[in-house]
Amino acid sequence: MAVYTEVTDEALTAFLALYDIGSLTAFRGIAEGVENSNYALKTSQGDFILTLYEKRVNKEDLPYFLGLMEHLGAHGLPCPQPVRAKTGRNLQELAGKMAAITTFLPGVWPRQIKVAHCEPLGAALARLHLAGEGFAMTRRNGLGPDAWGPLLAKSLPQADGVMGGLGAALQAWLEQVLANWPQGLPVGQIHADLFPDNVFFLDAQISGLIDFYFACTDILAYDIAVCLNAWCFETPAELNVTRSRALLRGYQSVRSLSTAEINALPVLAQGAAMRFLLTRLYDWLNTPAGALVTPKDPLDYYRRLRFHFSVTGAGAYGL
Amino acid sequence: MAVYTEVTDEALTAFLALYDIGSLTAFRGIAEGVENSNYALKTSQGDFILTLYEKRVNKEDLPYFLGLMEHLGAHGLPCPQPVRAKTGRNLQELAGKMAAITTFLPGVWPRQIKVAHCEPLGAALARLHLAGEGFAMTRRNGLGPDAWGPLLAKSLPQADGVMGGLGAALQAWLEQVLANWPQGLPVGQIHADLFPDNVFFLDAQISGLIDFYFACTDILAYDIAVCLNAWCFETPAELNVTRSRALLRGYQSVRSLSTAEINALPVLAQGAAMRFLLTRLYDWLNTPAGALVTPKDPLDYYRRLRFHFSVTGAGAYGL
Repeated sequence: MAVYTEVTDEALTAFLALYDIGSLTAFRGIAEGVENSNYALKTSQGDFILTLYEKRVNKEDLPYFLGLMEHLGAHGLPCPQPVRAKTGRNLQELAGKMAAITTFLPGVWPRQIKVAHCEPLGAALARLHLAGEGFAMTRRNGLGPDAWGPLLAKSLPQADGVMGGLGAALQAWLEQVLANWPQGLPVGQIHADLFPDNVFFLDAQISGLIDFYFACTDILAYDIAVCLNAWCFETPAELNVTRSRALLRGYQSVRSLSTAEINALPVLAQGAAMRFLLTRLYDWLNTPAGALVTPKDPLDYYRRLRFHFSVTGAGAYGL
Repeated sequence: MAVYTEVTDEALTAFLALYDIGSLTAFRGIAEGVENSNYALKTSQGDFILTLYEKRVNKEDLPYFLGLMEHLGAHGLPCPQPVRAKTGRNLQELAGKMAAITTFLPGVWPRQIKVAHCEPLGAALARLHLAGEGFAMTRRNGLGPDAWGPLLAKSLPQADGVMGGLGAALQAWLEQVLANWPQGLPVGQIHADLFPDNVFFLDAQISGLIDFYFACTDILAYDIAVCLNAWCFETPAELNVTRSRALLRGYQSVRSLSTAEINALPVLAQGAAMRFLLTRLYDWLNTPAGALVTPKDPLDYYRRLRFHFSVTGAGAYGL
């Protein structure tokens, strides 16, 4: 769940008066989302989402995130569109937080991943990458390879308490991933967190991609590697190659991968697994008792990482 | 937050096929609600709420809860209306849980309580009591006076860890409350949990009363006592008598209180504070680390209870 900031009636009414979206009909906290407070907002003009940006999101990054959503939307990608206030601004302050209203997207995120989800997912990801071309702003990936060493260092002293030998394994793997990290691959705007709960489907078609708050400017194929980890494992240790093949086929139906990108898939997949393993490990060790969000088991990504180190090439993913 | 049970796409589609409410458009978890999993469900025919009943709700009680909502709705109270499946049933199974679809009510629950909320609240509560007349089923209050002793016994060994002397104070107060508990007051269907997040307002009018899953057949004025605790304290220790006067005025504009009911208000308010103090204390001591719901500080109700023991009569509440 995620409602960290409560909004008083008065503050909400004053905030809505800044917009031209009709009168308030309903306002309910949304359970999904981890980083920010999200509300379903209904007005006489329809459904919207109100997001309050919490402390994990850097204020300075908000113009990039909202600008990217606008750019992608203008180029045909179904993603939430920031609603501009009467002043033309897409960002305001509410309850002491930065806040934005975005359009509501129909659809349901898949609780149970099927092969049939993976081809449209791959195609949508490629469309996102193409639509991102020409967006003038950039954002460094705050959870990219540079960040993994410092992140591991924070958890290292307690890592073996999670699983014996975890600390040493991660140190050795991280060294390898960083040594093999690819250079010169095509770079662009990536989502960087396209997990199932960020992808809405309606009638077997993708109706929305949401939650662009990890988006950044990085290796395009890294985004595929995130999806391989997030969508294509049958169990934490076992890739479902039918899914990964469908994902890659969908992607390539829209944007062809170069040989260099294909060859880099195993190390990119290692890196993506490392990134989620490290943030989950950190959260696992640092979430206070009774926190609103239950930390996710970091070992699910340890098992994926081990898989990606066992493969001999991109063929393992069905290419 | 409250989404404890995830529903797969297939299960949801099969479930919706039991109803005649159009095709699925969106399905999002709702943050509010503590006992059950709640989803905002949008179909081609409009907005609905899907509730999955979790373990704290007794299956056997569901016909009472759903029947009461139907009865109250038929008698003009704005409360969620169970939607009947094509078979005529208002209750089904989904994802291994009992589940119901109810109508969506517009409105916003007040995050900041104002005097202006209290008179309409009182009036709505009295309307609920009148509308409940003639409902044939009854349900014992599972968290009524009989339950408080056993509930206190479970927390007693650890109570002083929450606050020095808490255990002894609760034992002494509970003895007094039980000794003074009123007999012979008017009984009927009560909500028993009418906190601000269960009351929707729209344009200063009440647009909905929700969450009937503590409803039961008990002393009507006890429901007022719950509201006095939940709506009328400025701080945990300080009653705002302007609010309580407005609440009682609103109530009596619809249903007059007898002298016996008025005289019983202090002890009923003690009992209501005791009930919430005891359940919160239990949850406080028994919520596992990392739970989805943050337990509420039980001492807020200790302070209210102390207040109710300090009053000399119903005059303290503005009567």
